[in-house]
Amino acid sequence: MGEFDSFKYQLDRPLDVKLSEFQRNDRLKHLIFAAQLTPGLLEKLRRMADMIRHMSRTRQGNMQLKNLLAHRRAMLYFTQPSTRTFLSFMAACQILGITCNEVRDTATSSETKRESKADSIRMFSSYFDVIIMRTMISEFSECCAYLMNQLELQEMRSVPIINAGAGADEHPTQALLDMYTILRTFTHDYSRESKRSRFIELQASYPELVAGPARKTYLFCGDMGRGRTARSLATVLSQYEQVRMFFVTPDHGELIMERAMIDKLRARGVEVHEFNSLDAQHDGHPILAQTDCLYMTRIQREHNSAQVEAELGQIDLSPFKLTPARASVLKTYAPILHPFPRDSVVGEIPTSIDADPRAMYFRQARNGMWIRAALLVHLFDAAEELMLIYGQFHQ
Amino acid sequence: MGEFDSFKYQLDRPLDVKLSEFQRNDRLKHLIFAAQLTPGLLEKLRRMADMIRHMSRTRQGNMQLKNLLAHRRAMLYFTQPSTRTFLSFMAACQILGITCNEVRDTATSSETKRESKADSIRMFSSYFDVIIMRTMISEFSECCAYLMNQLELQEMRSVPIINAGAGADEHPTQALLDMYTILRTFTHDYSRESKRSRFIELQASYPELVAGPARKTYLFCGDMGRGRTARSLATVLSQYEQVRMFFVTPDHGELIMERAMIDKLRARGVEVHEFNSLDAQHDGHPILAQTDCLYMTRIQREHNSAQVEAELGQIDLSPFKLTPARASVLKTYAPILHPFPRDSVVGEIPTSIDADPRAMYFRQARNGMWIRAALLVHLFDAAEELMLIYGQFHQ
Amino acid sequence: MGEFDSFKYQLDRPLDVKLSEFQRNDRLKHLIFAAQLTPGLLEKLRRMADMIRHMSRTRQGNMQLKNLLAHRRAMLYFTQPSTRTFLSFMAACQILGITCNEVRDTATSSETKRESKADSIRMFSSYFDVIIMRTMISEFSECCAYLMNQLELQEMRSVPIINAGAGADEHPTQALLDMYTILRTFTHDYSRESKRSRFIELQASYPELVAGPARKTYLFCGDMGRGRTARSLATVLSQYEQVRMFFVTPDHGELIMERAMIDKLRARGVEVHEFNSLDAQHDGHPILAQTDCLYMTRIQREHNSAQVEAELGQIDLSPFKLTPARASVLKTYAPILHPFPRDSVVGEIPTSIDADPRAMYFRQARNGMWIRAALLVHLFDAAEELMLIYGQFHQ
Repeated sequence: MGEFDSFKYQLDRPLDVKLSEFQRNDRLKHLIFAAQLTPGLLEKLRRMADMIRHMSRTRQGNMQLKNLLAHRRAMLYFTQPSTRTFLSFMAACQILGITCNEVRDTATSSETKRESKADSIRMFSSYFDVIIMRTMISEFSECCAYLMNQLELQEMRSVPIINAGAGADEHPTQALLDMYTILRTFTHDYSRESKRSRFIELQASYPELVAGPARKTYLFCGDMGRGRTARSLATVLSQYEQVRMFFVTPDHGELIMERAMIDKLRARGVEVHEFNSLDAQHDGHPILAQTDCLYMTRIQREHNSAQVEAELGQIDLSPFKLTPARASVLKTYAPILHPFPRDSVVGEIPTSIDADPRAMYFRQARNGMWIRAALLVHLFDAAEELMLIYGQFHQ
Repeated sequence: MGEFDSFKYQLDRPLDVKLSEFQRNDRLKHLIFAAQLTPGLLEKLRRMADMIRHMSRTRQGNMQLKNLLAHRRAMLYFTQPSTRTFLSFMAACQILGITCNEVRDTATSSETKRESKADSIRMFSSYFDVIIMRTMISEFSECCAYLMNQLELQEMRSVPIINAGAGADEHPTQALLDMYTILRTFTHDYSRESKRSRFIELQASYPELVAGPARKTYLFCGDMGRGRTARSLATVLSQYEQVRMFFVTPDHGELIMERAMIDKLRARGVEVHEFNSLDAQHDGHPILAQTDCLYMTRIQREHNSAQVEAELGQIDLSPFKLTPARASVLKTYAPILHPFPRDSVVGEIPTSIDADPRAMYFRQARNGMWIRAALLVHLFDAAEELMLIYGQFHQ
Repeated sequence: MGEFDSFKYQLDRPLDVKLSEFQRNDRLKHLIFAAQLTPGLLEKLRRMADMIRHMSRTRQGNMQLKNLLAHRRAMLYFTQPSTRTFLSFMAACQILGITCNEVRDTATSSETKRESKADSIRMFSSYFDVIIMRTMISEFSECCAYLMNQLELQEMRSVPIINAGAGADEHPTQALLDMYTILRTFTHDYSRESKRSRFIELQASYPELVAGPARKTYLFCGDMGRGRTARSLATVLSQYEQVRMFFVTPDHGELIMERAMIDKLRARGVEVHEFNSLDAQHDGHPILAQTDCLYMTRIQREHNSAQVEAELGQIDLSPFKLTPARASVLKTYAPILHPFPRDSVVGEIPTSIDADPRAMYFRQARNGMWIRAALLVHLFDAAEELMLIYGQFHQ
């Protein structure tokens, strides 16, 4: 980091101490860590995302939304390449009328003129009302949040910072959209019919089923070592009661879930089991048959050394593919998630699964747009105005 | 195409069979081929483009237009470089309030993570309401249209696809803007005076003159081999009655109009003649004196092999330049078109022609903006709303 | 320039003769030279920038502003890399509802197809309503302005041109934002308390103090040789009465203010003195103690030859750094300006100065946004409409 040395003291503190600095009363000032996504906040954001989603179905609703934050301008500072997250944030901003600006290539920026990163960020905060950032430097967004807090203390202009993914580390808004998909699924309101009947119908087959993310089994399959999205999601889910997690990964040091993470999850009361195949059994039954939610991931190839790449090439990946036969073992309501992109060569989810009603991965992407819009409404403290226009819309 | 192999059966069918799949009743679902531009559709689009053009002359009209599709978001997927077509579509979207997003470099996209093209496109269709695409792969947009049709059948989200030029192949929206310029010119409403008098005036000198594109002679000059715009336009014009076409090209295999195309035009009743100079005669009179519309093109240099480049370097291009002397032979009303860019080194149209009232090429570019806006209104089924606000505007 | 040869005659005329061609009555048609920024125009723009700034403090004000020029589209043609100026213009456009388009890389443009620059610019003027340009070619924007004037004479479509910095030459909108900061400071309205009392308070310590930029001493420190911003600002300031300028630079031919410029300033009645350290004295007193406004600049490293780079490496830059000790010598009201970016390695302004109430450089950047918005309102002749909505806003 070098230039952010002045924040070294803050960076080195334990996470719990940091979190309160990114809050203002009940509300986020910045979103930097997945750990900020408490069940209470998630429920608040889910409700707003639902409103935004409903309103966007009509022209009138869309026009009201487009007015909501039309006086705001966003900077999307994406120096780590990303199409999906970038476009999702763009769309989220556009839904709310926020004007977007972008910096995607530091080569064209003043950083080549030896401007400090802090000066660049402060310049952005002069022109724009929120900075959404994705960089290779994992602590960059955290430092920017400290910079903004410091400016606020000095009664200078300060804007919210959103961490849109940093290096191989945190990706809190991905966890947010995964959670929104899970929350939506486990209210069982996806069917076009009334919510109630679908839930009652399911309870006939699954009497132990309850609404919401608690008391469920989550199966994570693929790359737990480098896949920040699985780690962020597991962290958030560990806040709910009686959660069980199955981690299904190849037996390779780069791909298994790291020990510290498993210990942390267990310390929070999560029941964790590890397996080396989707066909594995637990307590005498197939793990897939016990799964309430399946989270598939791609084996990442971008950041490998030649040696790791060679080793990964030796691994038989067939036990980590969701074949139609395996999908048939899953519970009838269990959503199939994937943070995308999926690997079209490996085919961890073959396209033959796409028509399965439990395949949520395309809807999941669209959910990302709604929940990111909700996050922006929250950060700009416009929740009340949203509820107001939603009330008018519904009349 | 590889990844789009599942559409191979559809790709291999004859064009006529395909066209109906890109329609819904009277309306386009996607614009993929110039052959979709029937005289009926062109007339419909022309009327809408005229309305948009008139409304854009005042602040009030512009504000009404900017509201028309303000609830829509477009993806401009332009992985084949293009400034002109890109900016023209941007401007068209902006006139209607459509928010624009772009992908111009596949290197930054998830395709580097082995995401399939189909997944990328479906992701775009999750976030955006129309996909406007220009790629090096000629059948890409066609396959995307099939993908969208398939999603529609599965009652999934599906959006219109616009082919904004693909490889060396089709460029239907260029044909659209060329036709709009021709339709505008041949109603003779360009003069600031009343339409009527100008037409009557012309009929005094040209008693055989009728309004509209039928019964006219079109002279295409330059590069017919690689110039997709001339081929697309000739295809569209061949639908009108008693059309005659003069193709004036250097006598080189890469530059002449291909035999199959000429056969197809003749089969449709077009009278076709080929020449090797703008000074050529036909039936004892200069071809320029018989021309109702002159379509100049640039000799393309981008895609040549070293050998072809050397051969082209040998050709005397002076017979294919519109000198002021040659322009003086043209009919007094004959519009001079050029799809642009023109070659400032070769000078197929020297700047000394720019002030000629028949020089339409800059207006042609601006026409592209209006007619592309009309196309978007059509694809979003907003023609009635446009007519409504136009009615209010005119009161 | 080559392609713009037809404008050679115009280019070679003296500046005074040119200026009138970029005016229409009292109003700018194009902004090409800093010399166009007369005290009268600056006062007009300052008032508009103040209105825009005040309105932007509330949601309602912002929404009214966003409507003001919502029917306009801008082209930001920035082929010389620039983040700061680019984003500032983007934000300025967005405040007023102007839709932005950009070309930042000529490699993707039709210029690779041998299109002339004049054709490219005329194409932009077909689609957009103003062209804001920053290029490596210093006379490019001037030629574009001539091209637009010529089209206007021919009753063709013509749009305003804004020079947003060209090569190592003029950067009139930087001078504009510097002047806006100076004008704001010297009305002494920065304090949250009433304007009046602050001014009276200052006059107690500085009885000779008057409002406005006249009768002041401006100290320019750093790189006067390549820093176009200092030269542009000095040119503008030379129009005010009884102005004194101190140029403090290393004694190197590349860095000192050029002789012709100093002669020109003196011819206009400016009292000019040169020094080689911020600690220098004049008339027996420290120059810093006599300074009403301090303009710091960065020693530019981008455009140096290896030899110059080596020579600059030998120079002791410590006499040109604003240490806290030196800042304490400055008058209590003297604003500290810097066109930014500052050099974080050299540290001509260390971050320890940032909390000083006289440090204006971040506010200066934000001022750039307001005054550029005012410039756009002026060029689009919307000053009356701005005053109208400001009147409504204030009620």
